[in-house]
Amino acid sequence: MARPTYETRQSDTLAWLASAHVASETALRGLEGAEREVLRRHIEKLIDRCACRADRIARRGSSIADVTSTDWSSREIYDLHQNPRGKGMGARNRRYAHTVMAYFWTEYAQEEAAPSDLIHVTCTGYASPSAAQRMVARRGWGGRTRITHAYHMGCYAAVPALRMARGFVLADDTAQEADARVDVVHTELCSLHLDPSTHTPEQFVVQSLFADGFIRYSLSAATEEPSFEVLALAETIVPDSADAMTWVMTDWGMQMTLSRDVPTRIAGALGTFVARLYDKAGLDPATYFAQTVFAVHPGGPKIIDEVGRLLELREDQIAASRGVLFDFGNMSSATLPHIWMRVLEDPAAPRGTPVVSLAFGPGLTICGSIFRKR
Amino acid sequence: MARPTYETRQSDTLAWLASAHVASETALRGLEGAEREVLRRHIEKLIDRCACRADRIARRGSSIADVTSTDWSSREIYDLHQNPRGKGMGARNRRYAHTVMAYFWTEYAQEEAAPSDLIHVTCTGYASPSAAQRMVARRGWGGRTRITHAYHMGCYAAVPALRMARGFVLADDTAQEADARVDVVHTELCSLHLDPSTHTPEQFVVQSLFADGFIRYSLSAATEEPSFEVLALAETIVPDSADAMTWVMTDWGMQMTLSRDVPTRIAGALGTFVARLYDKAGLDPATYFAQTVFAVHPGGPKIIDEVGRLLELREDQIAASRGVLFDFGNMSSATLPHIWMRVLEDPAAPRGTPVVSLAFGPGLTICGSIFRKR
Repeated sequence: MARPTYETRQSDTLAWLASAHVASETALRGLEGAEREVLRRHIEKLIDRCACRADRIARRGSSIADVTSTDWSSREIYDLHQNPRGKGMGARNRRYAHTVMAYFWTEYAQEEAAPSDLIHVTCTGYASPSAAQRMVARRGWGGRTRITHAYHMGCYAAVPALRMARGFVLADDTAQEADARVDVVHTELCSLHLDPSTHTPEQFVVQSLFADGFIRYSLSAATEEPSFEVLALAETIVPDSADAMTWVMTDWGMQMTLSRDVPTRIAGALGTFVARLYDKAGLDPATYFAQTVFAVHPGGPKIIDEVGRLLELREDQIAASRGVLFDFGNMSSATLPHIWMRVLEDPAAPRGTPVVSLAFGPGLTICGSIFRKR
Repeated sequence: MARPTYETRQSDTLAWLASAHVASETALRGLEGAEREVLRRHIEKLIDRCACRADRIARRGSSIADVTSTDWSSREIYDLHQNPRGKGMGARNRRYAHTVMAYFWTEYAQEEAAPSDLIHVTCTGYASPSAAQRMVARRGWGGRTRITHAYHMGCYAAVPALRMARGFVLADDTAQEADARVDVVHTELCSLHLDPSTHTPEQFVVQSLFADGFIRYSLSAATEEPSFEVLALAETIVPDSADAMTWVMTDWGMQMTLSRDVPTRIAGALGTFVARLYDKAGLDPATYFAQTVFAVHPGGPKIIDEVGRLLELREDQIAASRGVLFDFGNMSSATLPHIWMRVLEDPAAPRGTPVVSLAFGPGLTICGSIFRKR
């Protein structure tokens, strides 16, 4: 994993968010002093009521300095006096490409061996060639490394990436190579896609949760330790929920919508889904459930609570999920791999520990996997 | 395959393009009658010199009525008096989502069996949930069909899609199902991403080539006829060519840049690449080359000419590629599958015919495959 350049305490990001929304509305409607104070109190109340509090997220990371100051005229994307929504899709995407190129370059600087496949996962910026392609070309790996873009799937995308990677490892021409290695790289720059001009409760939920995250891991047929063995993968789409969560392109960036009832909708499908995962893995829940660690994508604090309550989990079974949310926020598709890393490094989870991952995104899609720690 | 709603003769699309560029510049700079005439002659000259002529592309398809009239005030996206570049990314992407939803709905209306996987391939619009996810949810297939977004890879994306699909077929839990079937669906709406405000030679090349296309095919372990057996896949990135072709997001839509020397750069790497394909497939070129049909992605007429010349192909070996370009234009990632369909239906290509596919895109990436017709 790599941390974004700027890490800000949640209490500070919430104060910044309030100022950003006030500045945006002021620019749009030309508010005077008194009106502005009324608006500020309204927005602070909304944040108090809807935003994710500092006792659930301690800090969030961002790749832009914007969140560190309210001097709007000097902000790179959120120059809110001039652009009340922040700059347009083009500027945000250029910044994305620049940051992600730097990350790939650094991430692979010490890497001597070219991977056979590189899967680049993101839902927050798209350029072609991608930073993955540019890095591979510059390193002279273009003849060996196949590149796959796993884009625009949302928070659950680590599981489709595993599914692709497993297929690449199994496919003949990769498997023939003794050193076949599929790298998966997540680069999520959620902080580029805020909209300070929309003051709905939903937007304060979204804008107080998401953060930037960067992480890389590899899949291969090798069995070195410590690692995870992938036992089973599963995916399902919850019926009649297509509009409960959306992620679409607009002129100014990517826009998220989120219904209040997403945790309830997911909870309704979860019992069956988890049973199916154990079944696919050939593990009897009666034996293995109590020792399983749950890597639950922390869409927000409520979803972890809900999953824990529904599956009757002990607090230690979801501690890694809560910990990653607390330390870094919701880093979209990069979040689950951060939890995996924590479980892998945790001496309290011994060899043989089953790890059930659960992630959620537009569809509503529920994605899951079972690993065994080795 | 399905055809877009509007099909326009190339001579008419070129005339429309000239008018669109003049209207855009007129709106931007407030040109008067005489200046406008000078500009029109300049643009017509550029089109004459750079655009793809009607003897290489007969017709192009579009999903919007815009190209059928120069009454700019009533155009859906290219209301050029008001928006000299056309409407923004949001409007284009909404139109994309609407059209692609209708296509998926119709395409699967008669389909009774849910695929085990559905790979949605595009580089011209991204919404989450995608039309693929919405269709699967509405059909009640959410518990069975896994969905993968293969987005933003460009014209060569059919080959990564084959690579993913092959992995899914090989992966345990899919292979166990007797009726495992991976559907690949391409929906490309290139006509949504024109920029009539940029009058460079490069833009006239791009804007006179691309078109909309929709096509679906399936991969499975079955061996029914007629079909193709996938013998080998290969990919490579040409060194030092990352900026020769780009496809990036802007405020107004997706922007393509294209160097003049792309065909030369590709040609330089092609001999080795094709030899590697035959080698991976275990086919001796001395025996098989002369009977091979070449499915060459028609980036433009020049690339087919170049590949034909370089590999010393007979005209009948690349006739299907020329034919698809002539009939439909360059439909980005949907183009190669249209050529495959033509070869599959062509009685002049008997059972056993090797089919080498070659496609090109940002990276510069060269993707290829060898099939055998059965």
